[in-house]
Amino acid sequence: MTVTNKQVLLAARPDGWVKESDFHITQTAVPSPAEGQVLLKNLYLSLDPYMRGAMNEKRAYGTALKIGDVMVGETVSEVTESRNAKFKIGDTVAAYAGWQQYAISDGKNLRFVDPHLLPPSTYLGVVGMPGVTAWYGLLKIGEPKAGETVVVSAASGAVGGVVGQIAKIKQCRVVGFAGGRQKCDYVINELGFDACIDHRSENWYEALKEATPKGIDVYFENVGGPVLDALLARCNTFARIPLCGMIAEYNAKDRYGLKNLISAIGNRIKLQGFIISDHFEVWPEALAQLAQWVREGRIKYRESVTEGLESAPAAFVGLFKGENFGKQIVKIA
Amino acid sequence: MTVTNKQVLLAARPDGWVKESDFHITQTAVPSPAEGQVLLKNLYLSLDPYMRGAMNEKRAYGTALKIGDVMVGETVSEVTESRNAKFKIGDTVAAYAGWQQYAISDGKNLRFVDPHLLPPSTYLGVVGMPGVTAWYGLLKIGEPKAGETVVVSAASGAVGGVVGQIAKIKQCRVVGFAGGRQKCDYVINELGFDACIDHRSENWYEALKEATPKGIDVYFENVGGPVLDALLARCNTFARIPLCGMIAEYNAKDRYGLKNLISAIGNRIKLQGFIISDHFEVWPEALAQLAQWVREGRIKYRESVTEGLESAPAAFVGLFKGENFGKQIVKIA
Repeated sequence: MTVTNKQVLLAARPDGWVKESDFHITQTAVPSPAEGQVLLKNLYLSLDPYMRGAMNEKRAYGTALKIGDVMVGETVSEVTESRNAKFKIGDTVAAYAGWQQYAISDGKNLRFVDPHLLPPSTYLGVVGMPGVTAWYGLLKIGEPKAGETVVVSAASGAVGGVVGQIAKIKQCRVVGFAGGRQKCDYVINELGFDACIDHRSENWYEALKEATPKGIDVYFENVGGPVLDALLARCNTFARIPLCGMIAEYNAKDRYGLKNLISAIGNRIKLQGFIISDHFEVWPEALAQLAQWVREGRIKYRESVTEGLESAPAAFVGLFKGENFGKQIVKIA
Repeated sequence: MTVTNKQVLLAARPDGWVKESDFHITQTAVPSPAEGQVLLKNLYLSLDPYMRGAMNEKRAYGTALKIGDVMVGETVSEVTESRNAKFKIGDTVAAYAGWQQYAISDGKNLRFVDPHLLPPSTYLGVVGMPGVTAWYGLLKIGEPKAGETVVVSAASGAVGGVVGQIAKIKQCRVVGFAGGRQKCDYVINELGFDACIDHRSENWYEALKEATPKGIDVYFENVGGPVLDALLARCNTFARIPLCGMIAEYNAKDRYGLKNLISAIGNRIKLQGFIISDHFEVWPEALAQLAQWVREGRIKYRESVTEGLESAPAAFVGLFKGENFGKQIVKIA
């Protein structure tokens, strides 16, 4: 039997909302590692909102994909061939190996993970890029202090869930935003937030006011749009707003027009965009702390796992509609 | 002859654009200082955009005025009676004595100024609150580095002019925004900016692109609205945006909807609101440095001076239409 390498390619640049036909699934030969390289068999693929940006012709950061390129993304992978002394067959690594079954790596951006310590997929979520994103954005930009009120949007998601749980560990009042009653119940009952507001409900702004009687000191931004506008108006003096994502805007042809940035002057608010790949220096510390909190049961997580690489396009499209519940993972092998 | 105290009161809360009939001019008896107090005779009154906020029923910071209150504002004043050992008759001080001819002070917020070192009115502008605002926002939040591009709006104004000239001292490329050709010419020819864009011209965005070939590293924000939106889209990675004012929005019933804040994520931009009265600790250092630069001719300034307290309402209304050219001052006595 010839083993082939199934891949998901960028077939077309999305015109507004991303759709399954923007992807193309193909098969190619499994590549062979040259001297210094390893062959990776991808076990799990992470699907994250930021990938939408890579599909555009112009990209704010990183390299935009060309039509026909393999979609980019984090994986947990197994070393199946090695011509690099640092890696041996059977090693499990976190990689940036893309939407495909196999990939070649020179080993530089691989991170050893221990699949016996925590389930392998968690290295794509709570103890991977999303977890470190939450840790850095909340602690280094948000700088929450005990007793303050922290609000986080996309609260049941891979980043938001960790943000809120770290904020609880830091003894803050924590309020989430999520889409639908089921996710809100999970955020309160499982993740331990003090409140969670369904942004699809009609009275969400009233609910926000009730849930934040002392105003807002930190707002961890994952969504953009009217939620950001409303929260800006409820922020306390000297509030901090780490800008992590604006998933509501990624597919928009006409973006929401924000009206309340002016309150950042009167209330001396800081808004700061960040991308976690700028801060590799914090990863070891962040990952160690996150893993400890997960093992102690102080940080819980939830995954949406779809089966097979073919399921990736539909699952990715679903991300922007809130169809996932927790970290979206594709089990490839 | 009985000396009376002419005062400008808040007569009505502005409904959108502030107008002269929102003020009322009255006369009252000159008050007498109690033990520990001084009587101030106000020589010069500063008119600043932030005062518009104090006229609203709800104010983002500080105390909102009540109908009938004397309008608030900085003055340069002379001590004409003293029952406070720290002050003697004839002392010149910078005060917060409001839109009136005389005021009582307990001396706490008075700052001695030397009318022989620099003209007294400058203590309301280039070596007063606007100058320190420029100094702090640019140097402490903007943190410009030699060779970077700094853009400042309201560039011919009391704050903007100082921002740009400090940025030139710090060896930056400096681009201003101002309203009309005359102001732009002044900003380039007198203040020494590298370029100045007339925001009233049709092709201002093209002009901005030409004037910032290497993008923008610091944008000192005084106006808000479409200029901020355009600049956000031209900011470089890790750009800093001190949010000082949004004069375009202060009278607006329906604010401009900002669409490009999303670029703050991809470009890791920091936006930070500030109010200079939070930072009294920097005033001595800032004022000493500004005074030195002014005496050395490295910082120039321009004032619009109207005569008599009665002229204050019309001059204030004109501020929001760009009728002033440089720092707006009212000569009271």
